[in-house]
Amino acid sequence: MSLIVQKFGGTSVGTVERIQSVAEKVGKFRAEGHDIVVVVSAMSGETNRLIDLAKQISNKPNPREMDVLVSTGEQVTIALLSMALEERGLEARSYTGAQVKILTDNAYTKARIREIDNDNIRADLAAGRVVVVAGFQGVDEQGNITTLGRGGSDTTAVAIAAALKADECQIYTDVDGVYTTDPRVVEKARRLDRITFEEMLEMASLGSKVLQIRAVEFAGKFNVPLRVLHSFQEGPGTLISLEEQTEMETPSIAGIAFNRDEAKLTVVGVPDSPGVASQILAPIGDSNIEVDVIVQNVGEDGKTDLTFTVNRNDLAKAEAVLQGIAKNIGAEQVKTDAKIVKVSLVGVGMRSHAGIASKMFKILAAEGINIQMITTSEIKISVVVDEKYLELAVRALHDGFELDKEPA
Amino acid sequence: MSLIVQKFGGTSVGTVERIQSVAEKVGKFRAEGHDIVVVVSAMSGETNRLIDLAKQISNKPNPREMDVLVSTGEQVTIALLSMALEERGLEARSYTGAQVKILTDNAYTKARIREIDNDNIRADLAAGRVVVVAGFQGVDEQGNITTLGRGGSDTTAVAIAAALKADECQIYTDVDGVYTTDPRVVEKARRLDRITFEEMLEMASLGSKVLQIRAVEFAGKFNVPLRVLHSFQEGPGTLISLEEQTEMETPSIAGIAFNRDEAKLTVVGVPDSPGVASQILAPIGDSNIEVDVIVQNVGEDGKTDLTFTVNRNDLAKAEAVLQGIAKNIGAEQVKTDAKIVKVSLVGVGMRSHAGIASKMFKILAAEGINIQMITTSEIKISVVVDEKYLELAVRALHDGFELDKEPA
Repeated sequence: MSLIVQKFGGTSVGTVERIQSVAEKVGKFRAEGHDIVVVVSAMSGETNRLIDLAKQISNKPNPREMDVLVSTGEQVTIALLSMALEERGLEARSYTGAQVKILTDNAYTKARIREIDNDNIRADLAAGRVVVVAGFQGVDEQGNITTLGRGGSDTTAVAIAAALKADECQIYTDVDGVYTTDPRVVEKARRLDRITFEEMLEMASLGSKVLQIRAVEFAGKFNVPLRVLHSFQEGPGTLISLEEQTEMETPSIAGIAFNRDEAKLTVVGVPDSPGVASQILAPIGDSNIEVDVIVQNVGEDGKTDLTFTVNRNDLAKAEAVLQGIAKNIGAEQVKTDAKIVKVSLVGVGMRSHAGIASKMFKILAAEGINIQMITTSEIKISVVVDEKYLELAVRALHDGFELDKEPA
Repeated sequence: MSLIVQKFGGTSVGTVERIQSVAEKVGKFRAEGHDIVVVVSAMSGETNRLIDLAKQISNKPNPREMDVLVSTGEQVTIALLSMALEERGLEARSYTGAQVKILTDNAYTKARIREIDNDNIRADLAAGRVVVVAGFQGVDEQGNITTLGRGGSDTTAVAIAAALKADECQIYTDVDGVYTTDPRVVEKARRLDRITFEEMLEMASLGSKVLQIRAVEFAGKFNVPLRVLHSFQEGPGTLISLEEQTEMETPSIAGIAFNRDEAKLTVVGVPDSPGVASQILAPIGDSNIEVDVIVQNVGEDGKTDLTFTVNRNDLAKAEAVLQGIAKNIGAEQVKTDAKIVKVSLVGVGMRSHAGIASKMFKILAAEGINIQMITTSEIKISVVVDEKYLELAVRALHDGFELDKEPA
């Protein structure tokens, strides 16, 4: 008998029938004797409908009122799911963020959770009730309604699981787990039984959009075991947890992530003097452009090249900024390339396994793929390559590292 | 400079455009220097949409969750109206029932207001803000969301006006005031400038559905001047207030109400013994049937007839109850008639003006209208007549009492 927090997103509660399916699933867990807290999002489409109403009234709606408006979406779902649970003979009780209460700061539309009062929830669980909580929303010190920003329901679920010291936080999605890579690219991609928080963060931030990064960080920080499961299919899903020190051998590689949304800028022939990187990157940061990979080549003749990647949507803006400062910093030229992708090997096993990088480069070379940039961290190696090689590179690496096979 | 509470119903806020019109109207009052609290209902159709979702899940949805569900309707409106006010440069702040807080008992779906905390509202008004409050909803001692039942937004407005000791509570509707009778029946029906709470209660309960009875009762109890106005047309509307003792002469009759929804039952030839009325009416009450007019004729030969009216929808049920007990109480026969209507003259002036009843009967007799039942109170005289005479009776009385003319 465990205490489980289950989170169902907008698609999982998108119709009355789906809400009834969720109630049935919750009922099965209750029948096994588990205590259940369910966190739900707004029915799919509802949040957009509400935002659209606001946009008809104002181009820049008051953020406090925006949160009052969109928070009704989850409130509808908690009521309907509680009714569906009661209809199946389960005692249930719904809570808005304010009722829980989920105390946040007052940064409307992107609030952060400060504290969760779990007295009411504990009392309900003790009384045998299923507790249904509105995701994505909270309340500030003054009682104003706040929201956590898009995808905040995952964060609500993890925060409640942390506050209750739940045994597991289950995130129900439209996939049956986390894969070694995107199955649309590699047919033999394999569902992982387990992955560590760190690996999941790299996989998620690199483009495998299963979970909100913020929720994974939160779960890692409070060591809440997270499980990704399919809403409407049976299966064990993928457990995301701390690295278990007891396992003698960790698989070298968890998976391969990739990102098609990047573009590359190179400032060619800058005088190689201290502070040149900051001279180039500070104006980029000041323009609210996020930089991902940065590589600086040691130059000849006192000159150096600095290359970095940004989101493709920011390329034109970044180029304009660089053209504006190129002369001042004595650069010869600014070059851009929108047709690149980033491919990353992710795995905590890299820490203890040497030779992974060289094996990676060898596999890519064997396919004739030219590597434009390389960047590494403790648990990942990323390369930037021409976008036309994306599928080839991912498949070759998946095969080369035998990711389709269960680790021994 | 006054403090005004303004209530806009579902039709008045039924679309984004209408919400913008309401914002414009509120803006005009602000420009005149008034402090404004606006109470709004859900956008028309929204409450029914939500109820329909619940009905798809359960025939008998959990009442607590029903209130969580439907209270989102007004929450959407307060946010949108506040945005529309801010868009026009007015500072505004929305409040749900819980945020105000409007403390109620815990009778879900039909809660009654216990107390209103007006500290936040007063602070906002002092800061120059328009306060926008969700009608129809409150919160119980434990923080559970409650609703006041259909039409509860009028009650919310009056209760807030009472708590704030507002100068006036304006109820915006789809009519431009209270009329001497239904203008669809009598073309010359005249809008009343004023009417007393008592008269309005009789007019409303007798079928002129402009205001919720409960709100009028509440306003009368706390002496909150109520004004009925048209949402989208200019005009003074009708002021509902206490009878002013300073006026030397009160017009005899305020108006004529009528009710097409009644049906008549007669228990014929019951032994005229003490307790016979209760023997007949107690089983009716036990069956949750509301009785309106009751008349008992003094009988001959120790026999009496008892006649009463019920809502037409309850006629079959009431007849079944009476047939079941007819033998026990020694009745000769039970007769029913669904084709009747009740027509009522209403006016506080009746108290001091003799001869109104006889004038009424004379007018009806002159038109050949047979009176089936008569019942009177301090401020009204009601007659039950064949339904085919309804329009004729109302027009004849309207003419006979010269209700189309302004009182001197």
